[in-house]
Amino acid sequence: MWSRKTCVCVKMKVGLFGFGKTGKAVATVLLQSHEVDLCWVIRKTTNLQHRSVPEFLGVKDNTQGVIFSKDEYTPEELFEKHPVDAIIDFSSADAVLNYGEEATKRGICIVTAISAYPETTIEHLKKLSEKTRILWSPNITIGINFLMLAAKILKTIAPYTDIELIEEHFKDKKEVSGTAIKISHTLGLSYKDIKSVRAGGIIGRHELIFGFPYQTVRLIHEAIAREAFGNGALFAVKNIINQKNGFYCMEDILIPYFNLQITPTENSSPNP
Amino acid sequence: MWSRKTCVCVKMKVGLFGFGKTGKAVATVLLQSHEVDLCWVIRKTTNLQHRSVPEFLGVKDNTQGVIFSKDEYTPEELFEKHPVDAIIDFSSADAVLNYGEEATKRGICIVTAISAYPETTIEHLKKLSEKTRILWSPNITIGINFLMLAAKILKTIAPYTDIELIEEHFKDKKEVSGTAIKISHTLGLSYKDIKSVRAGGIIGRHELIFGFPYQTVRLIHEAIAREAFGNGALFAVKNIINQKNGFYCMEDILIPYFNLQITPTENSSPNP
Amino acid sequence: MWSRKTCVCVKMKVGLFGFGKTGKAVATVLLQSHEVDLCWVIRKTTNLQHRSVPEFLGVKDNTQGVIFSKDEYTPEELFEKHPVDAIIDFSSADAVLNYGEEATKRGICIVTAISAYPETTIEHLKKLSEKTRILWSPNITIGINFLMLAAKILKTIAPYTDIELIEEHFKDKKEVSGTAIKISHTLGLSYKDIKSVRAGGIIGRHELIFGFPYQTVRLIHEAIAREAFGNGALFAVKNIINQKNGFYCMEDILIPYFNLQITPTENSSPNP
Amino acid sequence: MWSRKTCVCVKMKVGLFGFGKTGKAVATVLLQSHEVDLCWVIRKTTNLQHRSVPEFLGVKDNTQGVIFSKDEYTPEELFEKHPVDAIIDFSSADAVLNYGEEATKRGICIVTAISAYPETTIEHLKKLSEKTRILWSPNITIGINFLMLAAKILKTIAPYTDIELIEEHFKDKKEVSGTAIKISHTLGLSYKDIKSVRAGGIIGRHELIFGFPYQTVRLIHEAIAREAFGNGALFAVKNIINQKNGFYCMEDILIPYFNLQITPTENSSPNP
Repeated sequence: MWSRKTCVCVKMKVGLFGFGKTGKAVATVLLQSHEVDLCWVIRKTTNLQHRSVPEFLGVKDNTQGVIFSKDEYTPEELFEKHPVDAIIDFSSADAVLNYGEEATKRGICIVTAISAYPETTIEHLKKLSEKTRILWSPNITIGINFLMLAAKILKTIAPYTDIELIEEHFKDKKEVSGTAIKISHTLGLSYKDIKSVRAGGIIGRHELIFGFPYQTVRLIHEAIAREAFGNGALFAVKNIINQKNGFYCMEDILIPYFNLQITPTENSSPNP
Repeated sequence: MWSRKTCVCVKMKVGLFGFGKTGKAVATVLLQSHEVDLCWVIRKTTNLQHRSVPEFLGVKDNTQGVIFSKDEYTPEELFEKHPVDAIIDFSSADAVLNYGEEATKRGICIVTAISAYPETTIEHLKKLSEKTRILWSPNITIGINFLMLAAKILKTIAPYTDIELIEEHFKDKKEVSGTAIKISHTLGLSYKDIKSVRAGGIIGRHELIFGFPYQTVRLIHEAIAREAFGNGALFAVKNIINQKNGFYCMEDILIPYFNLQITPTENSSPNP
Repeated sequence: MWSRKTCVCVKMKVGLFGFGKTGKAVATVLLQSHEVDLCWVIRKTTNLQHRSVPEFLGVKDNTQGVIFSKDEYTPEELFEKHPVDAIIDFSSADAVLNYGEEATKRGICIVTAISAYPETTIEHLKKLSEKTRILWSPNITIGINFLMLAAKILKTIAPYTDIELIEEHFKDKKEVSGTAIKISHTLGLSYKDIKSVRAGGIIGRHELIFGFPYQTVRLIHEAIAREAFGNGALFAVKNIINQKNGFYCMEDILIPYFNLQITPTENSSPNP
Repeated sequence: MWSRKTCVCVKMKVGLFGFGKTGKAVATVLLQSHEVDLCWVIRKTTNLQHRSVPEFLGVKDNTQGVIFSKDEYTPEELFEKHPVDAIIDFSSADAVLNYGEEATKRGICIVTAISAYPETTIEHLKKLSEKTRILWSPNITIGINFLMLAAKILKTIAPYTDIELIEEHFKDKKEVSGTAIKISHTLGLSYKDIKSVRAGGIIGRHELIFGFPYQTVRLIHEAIAREAFGNGALFAVKNIINQKNGFYCMEDILIPYFNLQITPTENSSPNP
């Protein structure tokens, strides 16, 4: 008999595609989580081949996470020799074209954060999602996606408010923030009204202002580090692993959290 | 036959208890709304008796809104001679003890924003709510109540975040903001951890900080003027008038707006 | 012998031109100050003629402040019968053309906050300032002017920073904030880079962002009410009354406050 | 003959004590600067001995910067074999006791950011500063020190304002921010009134609120990364190298930037 404290949860086995700046940050978060085992990382080049991920990143962890190069295995060999429950993809737009068929055949759940998928790849992903759970979100932080849904709701409650969107980033970011464009689109605002501040080393800040006649509501998201994407991917993988097959976005898995129940409180008890 | 644009909506008839600073601000908002008719205002003293509300407040309006003094009519006479669909109460804790029975007997809906009800009055209101719709909310602005619900949801999504609450008010406000205490209570925080800033003439600002490991979410409410209470009361009255009898709080009528549906979007189409 | 508490300071006698929304707010601040006596207010129309200012504004005050209409007296009669030390002008661009000569002849100090002076009037003011102290500032709040100087200094300290300017106002404000344009000009920024947020009932907010590579400094001014102009005018009048004749702006009287001395502190004691 | 553009400035030679997290960040900034040559770094341990600093940090740079271990040379040998104009110290409280005498004898300027000097070491530094320029600042960022001076000035301009200080840091920071305590002390506020927010991964944020009756001024500093200390140290070294001998703090070298001149502008031309 197991005591409660020593209960052994079976960790979810995860494989990661992509080991650039963001990939490394995501790997760090996965290694530090008690809920997943990072089994391997796939890298484009061969120069870190077979090194241990936790050792390379300087994270204390007992997992066996190993770095493979992209061409070391066929997808079939990879999933056969090193089976996983889920794939997290922070690599490039064509990676899934290679591993997708084989992964979905085995029911491996996929979370991908690639922003630049061409239309045909998106169609391919939708097709693949008939056999497994696939989540695609180019803005995979919890904070931004929460903000977007909360803002949508506030707009429904108070359609007469003026909504303004300010995004702030480091000076070398040339184009308007993709996240801001997504938010703007979601709220039915015009892309041209986004206020883009470019200053010094600001990592990323998005502020939504709801102007009521006699009050103002501000919803603000501040990025601190890329690791936030890791937390988002982890949240995504945990929330779709037990869903039915389909093609999801980050909003879809947040929506159930918004379905509040009217619960009788000390102030409130509607009669039956 | 009426074209859609010229459709004549019957306005809701409203009576207002209380004509202090907040009462006047609320009356101004009600007069400016196209959805309600402010029929009368009940005032404690007799010195503005029988004056026109729109004329006194300098608001252009065709309504007949008249100021009565508290002792001019019995509740029965008042509701008989000047019938209303709803009462909005910004007066004092004992007013409802006087008019409550008579109002609920006639099915008049009640929205009250009195903060200092003793426990016995709350019980009385609950009893009365068996025969009509009563909404009680000491923090009746839409913004604050939205913030509270949004924060509750974010806490469920990310229970590991640290939540901090800062409230800012004018220097002469001695005690901790009641609204902040309510928010703090709703989120299961300790009342003692509220940070109270007292500076100059700040009207009212509440900021909730959600600290994630690699991102920060801030939900901020800034009060501009008391008229915000008027918008809140108006929103409340419109939202409970067609509900079933019962005792409601502001959250109860906001919750339905939070029940988002997973709708297939271009990015997302879960298979059936 | 006077006890300390009853010591009679001779208050400065002040006259106010302009009694619109801003004029009334300024009058309220002047009435509440212990440093000036508001002797009279000049109004365009005759409909409040000879009423008491404190009584009209509901401010408890023992002063004799009276409302005159513009055409009741010639400037000569006005200053003769109701002498003042200083004039505060929140009326219109042509008022000073009428009273200016007579006022400066008597050495009456002038503080004017009119924004729309044509070039010829500005020249006229400069000419008049040979005989008295004239301060002209269309942005007469202490906060905004402090911000502008502090920003100028920070720009000198860190010329490599990116400076961004966001101004927020109520939705009906059509044009870019004049104050923002002034700030932008002072800092050598382009007028076109100002980010103008228009939302609900925001009274007025200016934010300057200094982006350093690894840190961000934000200087923010939030307007609460027009009375802020009264405090600014009061500060201006007190600070120029004893200066030599000349034409001043708000910055000129703030600059002396910026001339810090290197004082030996516990951490710092440069050798002689 | 050199054209102006190709003028060869002799770079300042700098040595760095300390190569922990902050030391590395400072080294990165120094390597990227065109104004200094980082000649060497002194490290406690021997495990990176003789490695190239730019190579280790992955910064492209032609300098010869080398890592030495603390015990490799006596101070005399170090300054003899590898002469520098200035020392920047981010190591520990006792380092200067070892190298101080020898450095000051040679007129090497010292910038130290150690926070935990005992009183006796401070006295020692003051004594040493008779022979060279020594700057000591535990809060060596430009932003924080600017904020402190700007706040001091605003307090003098408007002594009647309420000043509140909020500091925000990551959740594991147990004690009140030392920088906040310094700011609080500088402004004559009570240490106990500092509002300390602890949430998630916030790197460091300080907000000073000046509450006027009808306006609010906020001065905010947000830290993005430790490299900010490097920019501060660089600014310090450049600003004291040509000063007379003495013991300076960061404020001392910022103060000259605050000494604005009243310059005739289009709006302002005081008569002579």
